[in-house]
Amino acid sequence: MSEFPSVVELNVGGSPYATRLETLRSEEGSWLSEVFGGSPDDAARDSQGRFFIDRDGELFRYVLEYLREPAKFKMPVDFPQRVRLRKEAEFFRLGGLVEQTTKDPGTISIGYRGSFQFGRDGLADVKFRKITRLLVHGRVATCREVFGDTLNESRDPDHGGPDRYTARFFLKHVFIEQAFDMLQENGFRCVGSCGSGTAGSVNENLKPGVDSEENRWNHYNEFIFVRD
Amino acid sequence: MSEFPSVVELNVGGSPYATRLETLRSEEGSWLSEVFGGSPDDAARDSQGRFFIDRDGELFRYVLEYLREPAKFKMPVDFPQRVRLRKEAEFFRLGGLVEQTTKDPGTISIGYRGSFQFGRDGLADVKFRKITRLLVHGRVATCREVFGDTLNESRDPDHGGPDRYTARFFLKHVFIEQAFDMLQENGFRCVGSCGSGTAGSVNENLKPGVDSEENRWNHYNEFIFVRD
Amino acid sequence: MSEFPSVVELNVGGSPYATRLETLRSEEGSWLSEVFGGSPDDAARDSQGRFFIDRDGELFRYVLEYLREPAKFKMPVDFPQRVRLRKEAEFFRLGGLVEQTTKDPGTISIGYRGSFQFGRDGLADVKFRKITRLLVHGRVATCREVFGDTLNESRDPDHGGPDRYTARFFLKHVFIEQAFDMLQENGFRCVGSCGSGTAGSVNENLKPGVDSEENRWNHYNEFIFVRD
Amino acid sequence: MSEFPSVVELNVGGSPYATRLETLRSEEGSWLSEVFGGSPDDAARDSQGRFFIDRDGELFRYVLEYLREPAKFKMPVDFPQRVRLRKEAEFFRLGGLVEQTTKDPGTISIGYRGSFQFGRDGLADVKFRKITRLLVHGRVATCREVFGDTLNESRDPDHGGPDRYTARFFLKHVFIEQAFDMLQENGFRCVGSCGSGTAGSVNENLKPGVDSEENRWNHYNEFIFVRD
Amino acid sequence: MSEFPSVVELNVGGSPYATRLETLRSEEGSWLSEVFGGSPDDAARDSQGRFFIDRDGELFRYVLEYLREPAKFKMPVDFPQRVRLRKEAEFFRLGGLVEQTTKDPGTISIGYRGSFQFGRDGLADVKFRKITRLLVHGRVATCREVFGDTLNESRDPDHGGPDRYTARFFLKHVFIEQAFDMLQENGFRCVGSCGSGTAGSVNENLKPGVDSEENRWNHYNEFIFVRD
Repeated sequence: MSEFPSVVELNVGGSPYATRLETLRSEEGSWLSEVFGGSPDDAARDSQGRFFIDRDGELFRYVLEYLREPAKFKMPVDFPQRVRLRKEAEFFRLGGLVEQTTKDPGTISIGYRGSFQFGRDGLADVKFRKITRLLVHGRVATCREVFGDTLNESRDPDHGGPDRYTARFFLKHVFIEQAFDMLQENGFRCVGSCGSGTAGSVNENLKPGVDSEENRWNHYNEFIFVRD
Repeated sequence: MSEFPSVVELNVGGSPYATRLETLRSEEGSWLSEVFGGSPDDAARDSQGRFFIDRDGELFRYVLEYLREPAKFKMPVDFPQRVRLRKEAEFFRLGGLVEQTTKDPGTISIGYRGSFQFGRDGLADVKFRKITRLLVHGRVATCREVFGDTLNESRDPDHGGPDRYTARFFLKHVFIEQAFDMLQENGFRCVGSCGSGTAGSVNENLKPGVDSEENRWNHYNEFIFVRD
Repeated sequence: MSEFPSVVELNVGGSPYATRLETLRSEEGSWLSEVFGGSPDDAARDSQGRFFIDRDGELFRYVLEYLREPAKFKMPVDFPQRVRLRKEAEFFRLGGLVEQTTKDPGTISIGYRGSFQFGRDGLADVKFRKITRLLVHGRVATCREVFGDTLNESRDPDHGGPDRYTARFFLKHVFIEQAFDMLQENGFRCVGSCGSGTAGSVNENLKPGVDSEENRWNHYNEFIFVRD
Repeated sequence: MSEFPSVVELNVGGSPYATRLETLRSEEGSWLSEVFGGSPDDAARDSQGRFFIDRDGELFRYVLEYLREPAKFKMPVDFPQRVRLRKEAEFFRLGGLVEQTTKDPGTISIGYRGSFQFGRDGLADVKFRKITRLLVHGRVATCREVFGDTLNESRDPDHGGPDRYTARFFLKHVFIEQAFDMLQENGFRCVGSCGSGTAGSVNENLKPGVDSEENRWNHYNEFIFVRD
Repeated sequence: MSEFPSVVELNVGGSPYATRLETLRSEEGSWLSEVFGGSPDDAARDSQGRFFIDRDGELFRYVLEYLREPAKFKMPVDFPQRVRLRKEAEFFRLGGLVEQTTKDPGTISIGYRGSFQFGRDGLADVKFRKITRLLVHGRVATCREVFGDTLNESRDPDHGGPDRYTARFFLKHVFIEQAFDMLQENGFRCVGSCGSGTAGSVNENLKPGVDSEENRWNHYNEFIFVRD
């Protein structure tokens, strides 16, 4: 009875690959462990005797990489073929790879009203940024996935469901960089940004403790993030 | 009489491909089902005996991928070769692939006048975003394709035809993220964004129920989306 | 006397290509039709007997694609190798491909002063975008190439020549999306966008028929487009 | 006893590579120097006799490049596979390559309040940019890594640790271009930018020596930088 | 005595290349002209008899392209491997290629204060853009390299050296598109853009000949360009 060689040469849709037999067999229940756990006589071959797989010849690279070290697998940044790779993961029945390649595409925007610390800064010459609230807008489920515990949902009265959109979330901290880092970790990238100042005379109506200079520098900055 | 092998090795414009015979025959009426449904003796071959196809050697990857699972086919995100792939789909007479690769290129812009909810917010400290209308601008047919039922056309009096441009559409909702998600689903990406505040003293002329602070924060943000 | 095979296998700078002989001969006067219209004995070969061409092994893909269907040839979107492909087109003496790959790089900016239709809108609640003029800035020849008939040159008094820059062109219509579509068709992409509002009290000086609210929302948006 | 050839041909996950034996042996303690410092009889081979390595076939290119000239190794700009390359560097035990591919992803924003030099400019017609402070915001450790000695931390009272975020750093100089160059050198790229002017009448409250025109042109510009 | 074939087949780091012997010998003093000007018996070969070069297998494409037509060589637009290609050029001792791949990375920003021509425009309805000065900021040497004769350095009093940064350069013309074209020609691309309007009442202080409407539309736009 014939056996698979320890170094298996593959023809995947026309592209050559090579890996150890144990790599192909490593994930139980997968298509590959089934085919390469059986008899080589049942496996399709090409004219050069390489084992043949009728799947995309480029994406198989990532399938192999996943099998070699499942826990360490990482897609390239801004990977334009994520959805296509998920399809391969599904075909090969690789649960962990399906999971890593499954993400809802979508948009989240972060907005903040900001100014600078004039009135309260006794030391004077450096006026640092002052942000009152980081507002979060987008699909409810996506916002929750990205911001988790740092999301304040207390002011979102509509409990319609995770698929609706909301403009009533904000964050528990006021560091836009921390928010952007969490968006980045979750596969979002910034695609747009807008700024605007405020209008009109501000000398009237100042609340106690608010400097008029601080009021003059009020601005609203808005950042649009997208995940493909 | 000779027969095609069950694993067919191809030379497509110089690049090697391999697939099952049934994949090549799967779409009735296509160029490939015709050639590989006939006699191998009529098919061109290269010097190594691989079946020869005089088409682009890189895009054929997507042709095969489409044939393996037509219903699941997806182009890569922001695919710069879409138009070229459509040409291949037309040559190979693959209707579904032609359809998926056929999209009008063009521009849609989304603009909104916004501020924050000062006056009406009894609970005070969080002032959420307030958007009155999401304006949609672009070619009439493209706007309709993207926004479908969520598009309000009631104020567009000119019924000149779908190829004209309009600046009189708006959306039935006020979530920019939902609009951006629909643009993304339809292959658009954000390429520009502008913000501006308003000018001048605002204490006069306030409508009843409009807070003067709300008025001061008025801004117009505009986002440009493009599909290649 | 030996003859070329009907399927010609090529080694182009080390990369394998294959095409039909008639494809190589299709454009009269070209380098390829000369070489492959002559005797195979005069053509260089590699050690495997493939016909050898001492040119770039990747760009030849586009040369072949052009020869297969010259009228349908399209470069990929934002093709970073356009200038390099033109060099190949020149070497191979393919006039149509030279033409398609020859474009002046450069910058065009579009600016507009805009607001919203407050005063004139009897129906009230939707205030659409109002743009008076789309200004076009850049090299005269490039602006003409892109905008053709839609360009209003009547206010550009300096007839110094197409290589000078102008800031006195505007468009005959006021749809930025239409302008952007024409820029896109001509290979430009948006690389920058700026917005700004106006300053100061506006209650004095209003022309008859101009609403003061309209005046408050005045803004200038500017978009920078580049072709590589 | 057999020996390795001086030119070693490799099959890395299916992709062909070739290098000199001394290149493979050059880094002591590495996986490659161990395997290729031992006996060829112990090394895995493919069916063509090439030495087989069960790792990714594309990233090995960078592994070889590092081994040829470790001190000169440079990743491509904005390399989307950095994290994946680090994984290879770890597998092959190449300390220098691990180091070069190890960078914290994250966000840093630079903001500045600026205007123009009106009052102090005796020579009059050119009003240069005037920036008082370049504010730096982000994770403390990342800001320090990027800006080193040019970072002023004197106003950051919270010594909570390098993982917290701060909005109280600023730079010791006022050239945004110098700050951006340092961000670029450290692998950051600009992903967003916002500008806004100030509000309201400015004739009152002017400090001695501050021109009212200078005050009118006050603006806040904010730039978001990301490292993947 | 053996001789090199006229068509030389190469194995460069595992990748196949082919070129004419005279191409390899064309640049005197180079590594390749030395190796291929000597005896084939001294040249390393792989197991298939191809001449072996222990360098990167992808970048060699550009080395060959340079050798075929040195004067016409052009890198792809925004080439992420420029620094790596320079390393190859240095190894192969190709002076012209070293020169073409050597560019300082860095940032230049262009800012302008602008408005529209209200007061002086007798013809009335088109208000063109009005820019007083194009300010240039960045490293002195880089600004000089890009703008050459069009740079006005007369107001930069600090002669500290080309490595310092300056904010006191401006251009001799006022076309941002011309400035952007020169940045593009020198390998820079736009990565950020900010706009802001001015503040406050403008009716006082108007210089003679300056329209108050012109004053209201004052804005500052800033564009950040980077070369990798």
